[in-house]
Amino acid sequence: MREQYHEQLAEISENLVEMTQMVGDAMGRSTRALLEADLQAAESVIASDIDIDERADALEVLTLDVIALQAPVAGDLRALVGALRISTTLERMGDLAEHIAQSARRRYPDVAVPEELHETIREMGDLAVRLVHETGEIIKTVDVAHALRLEVEDDRMDELHRQMFMKILAPDWSHGVESAIDATLISRFYERFADHSVSVARRVVHQATGMRPQTMEHD
Amino acid sequence: MREQYHEQLAEISENLVEMTQMVGDAMGRSTRALLEADLQAAESVIASDIDIDERADALEVLTLDVIALQAPVAGDLRALVGALRISTTLERMGDLAEHIAQSARRRYPDVAVPEELHETIREMGDLAVRLVHETGEIIKTVDVAHALRLEVEDDRMDELHRQMFMKILAPDWSHGVESAIDATLISRFYERFADHSVSVARRVVHQATGMRPQTMEHD
Repeated sequence: MREQYHEQLAEISENLVEMTQMVGDAMGRSTRALLEADLQAAESVIASDIDIDERADALEVLTLDVIALQAPVAGDLRALVGALRISTTLERMGDLAEHIAQSARRRYPDVAVPEELHETIREMGDLAVRLVHETGEIIKTVDVAHALRLEVEDDRMDELHRQMFMKILAPDWSHGVESAIDATLISRFYERFADHSVSVARRVVHQATGMRPQTMEHD
Repeated sequence: MREQYHEQLAEISENLVEMTQMVGDAMGRSTRALLEADLQAAESVIASDIDIDERADALEVLTLDVIALQAPVAGDLRALVGALRISTTLERMGDLAEHIAQSARRRYPDVAVPEELHETIREMGDLAVRLVHETGEIIKTVDVAHALRLEVEDDRMDELHRQMFMKILAPDWSHGVESAIDATLISRFYERFADHSVSVARRVVHQATGMRPQTMEHD
C-alpha cells in the first residue's frame, strides 16, 4: 500500500513536469507563429490545447483517487490539493499560449505585430519558455535557491512588458489603434504566463519547505 | 460525526456564497469608481481585496480539515475539491474588480474612460454584479435551469465586449492610443469576470447533477 502510494505521488509529479513541457512547447510555437506569420504553427497550438486540458483532467482523476484511497496525512493532503492547483495553473498557461496563436492566426497572412516590436517579443517568448522549463525542473528537484532565481528572472519579463508599453505609447507609433491593442494584449499574455510560472514554482517550494521564496521566511 | 460533517459542508457552501457577495460588492464599487472618478470607492476596493483573499485561505483550511478528518466518499471528495476551485475562481474575480479600481485610481482626478463608453461600461458593470449574485443563488439552490439562464445572460456580456471594441476601433475614435488600451483592458476584465461567474455556476451544477448546463447532457 505504501509503495503503491509513493509510486502514485511520483506519477502525479511526473505528470506536472510533462505538463510544463507541453505548455512550454505551445508557447514556443505561438511565438514563432506570431513573429513569422506561421499559420501551421498557430493551428498546431490551437489544436493541441485540448491535449493539455485532457492531461489536467486525467491528473485530477488520479489525484482524487489517491486522496480517497490512501487517506493521506495533512501535509501530503495539502500537497495533493496543491498539485491540482498547479495543474489548473498550467492549463491556464496553455490557454495564454493559445491566445497568442489566435492573434497570429487572426492576422494571417499579415504579421500580427509590427517589426519594431519583434525583438522585445522574441525575448519575451524565449524567456517565457525558459521560465516554464525551469519550473518543471523545480517540480522535480524542489530546489529553493532555483525558485528564488526564477523570481529574479521574472523581473526581466516585467521590464520587457513595460518596454512594450513605452513603444506602443510613444508619439511616433504609426501602426494605429487596433495594432496597439493587439500588441498590448499579447504583451500581457506573456507577462501573465511568466507570472503563473513563478507562482507554480513558489507553491512547490512552499508546500515542500513551508518557506516562501520571495522572502525566504516561514509563514 | 455525521452531523458535524453536514454542518461543515453547509459552512463551506455559505462561505462561497458570502464570497460571491464580497466580489459582487467590489465590482459594483469599481464600476462607480471608474465612471465617476470616485477615488474613495477605488481605494476601498483595493484595500478590501485582502479580505476576499483571506476568506479564500480560511476556506482552504476548513476544506482540507474536512477532507482529512471525515474521509469523504468519492462524490463528496469531488465536491470539496470543487469548492476549493470555486473559491480560487472567486478570488480571481476579486482581482479583476481590483484591476478596474486601479485603472480608475491611476487616472484620478480624470475619468479613466471617455464619456461615449460610459453607457456600455455601466451595463457591463451592472451585468457583472448581477451574474455573480445569481451565481451565489445557484450555489445555494443548485438550480440547473437557473444555471442555464446564466449562460444566456453571459451572451449579452460578450456582445457588450464586442460593442466596446467597435467603438474603440471606429475611425472617429478621438481619445488616442493610451485611452484605447485602457478601455480594452477594462472591457476584458468585465468579460473575464462574467466568464468566471458562469464557470462557477457550471461547476456547481455539474458536481451536483453530473450534467453540463451548456448542453444539458451527461458527461
